[in-house]
Amino acid sequence: MSFFPASLEELVDKFAALPGIGRKSAQRLAFHVLSLPDAEAESFAAAIVNAKKSVHCCKVCQNLTEGDICRICASTTRDKSTICVVSEPRDVLSIERGREYNGTYHVLHGVLSPMSHVGPDDIKIKELLVRVAENDIEEVIMATNPDTEGEATAMYISRLLKPFSVKVTRLAYGIPVGSNLEFADDATLNRAIEGRTEM
Amino acid sequence: MSFFPASLEELVDKFAALPGIGRKSAQRLAFHVLSLPDAEAESFAAAIVNAKKSVHCCKVCQNLTEGDICRICASTTRDKSTICVVSEPRDVLSIERGREYNGTYHVLHGVLSPMSHVGPDDIKIKELLVRVAENDIEEVIMATNPDTEGEATAMYISRLLKPFSVKVTRLAYGIPVGSNLEFADDATLNRAIEGRTEM
Repeated sequence: MSFFPASLEELVDKFAALPGIGRKSAQRLAFHVLSLPDAEAESFAAAIVNAKKSVHCCKVCQNLTEGDICRICASTTRDKSTICVVSEPRDVLSIERGREYNGTYHVLHGVLSPMSHVGPDDIKIKELLVRVAENDIEEVIMATNPDTEGEATAMYISRLLKPFSVKVTRLAYGIPVGSNLEFADDATLNRAIEGRTEM
Repeated sequence: MSFFPASLEELVDKFAALPGIGRKSAQRLAFHVLSLPDAEAESFAAAIVNAKKSVHCCKVCQNLTEGDICRICASTTRDKSTICVVSEPRDVLSIERGREYNGTYHVLHGVLSPMSHVGPDDIKIKELLVRVAENDIEEVIMATNPDTEGEATAMYISRLLKPFSVKVTRLAYGIPVGSNLEFADDATLNRAIEGRTEM
């Protein structure tokens, strides 16, 4: 039996349904929302509805945008002949943070995962193939995560891209900058040796 | 410069303003909300507005409720002559979980904290004094947290309650059940020795 009002329980349930938020944290968040001034709580609710309503996928790269095409695809200074394929919109942010990459992106919105019933038709692979077929693309960089599913997705897509005679590359594996050999795992260290470059 | 649409940034800001949610987690939560079906996102927003609108403080004990008085104060089986004073509504839940306590509560909605500019008038102390003065109360159990601020609040209130000739008690300090002496801190261990009981 719960000693909280139904509408509070309902709010706790909503927070608890978010990823990485347990029951206790959800309670804390719900109490916090109740302690907010009315206007702030309403603007929180409005932000949810508003973001949900106005954000959709860029027609070109499938990244999230409010317009027809995203800022990166609309930019005239970016190299449109290079496409970096990532699994999630937040990965775009990570790569942009480096300020090195000047090409465009393609966001898959997921990775192939037979365990979670995610097949090739559930992520934006078709859109990538159409894009490569219809445009003058020179290189596709596979930048999915270096885990089993990201790896399998990269392999799968690179095979589909074979007929288009486009250069398909993968992010380099190796020891992270600033880290310590002692703490690198075996797989990473082996890949770092395999991928060694001349100085 | 951000590469996300403004309405998404706004939602990330809202999540990041919640307690214990950093920028990265806020992004994850915002992306999750965007991935929800429209109806679910709207019901999340509605739950916030609804909880904020219908939840308020019980007239008697200041616990959160949707009605005039809360379920515990409305119950006919609870002992109305005992009041357990806690700082937050969630503390009521913690004590109820034990299924031992059968009295009523008083929720302060905070603790005295000069550092955060929380004074006696900012928490529900006056309501407690009025309640003790106007009702036949036998015992007030101070159950604020055993930290500096909770301690100071308990001391302050117990002094205010002196004139009412009501029994004022404090939760027992000691080693937690099922724990290990080796890991108990000095202060707890000293309190456990001080508060030793005959077997």
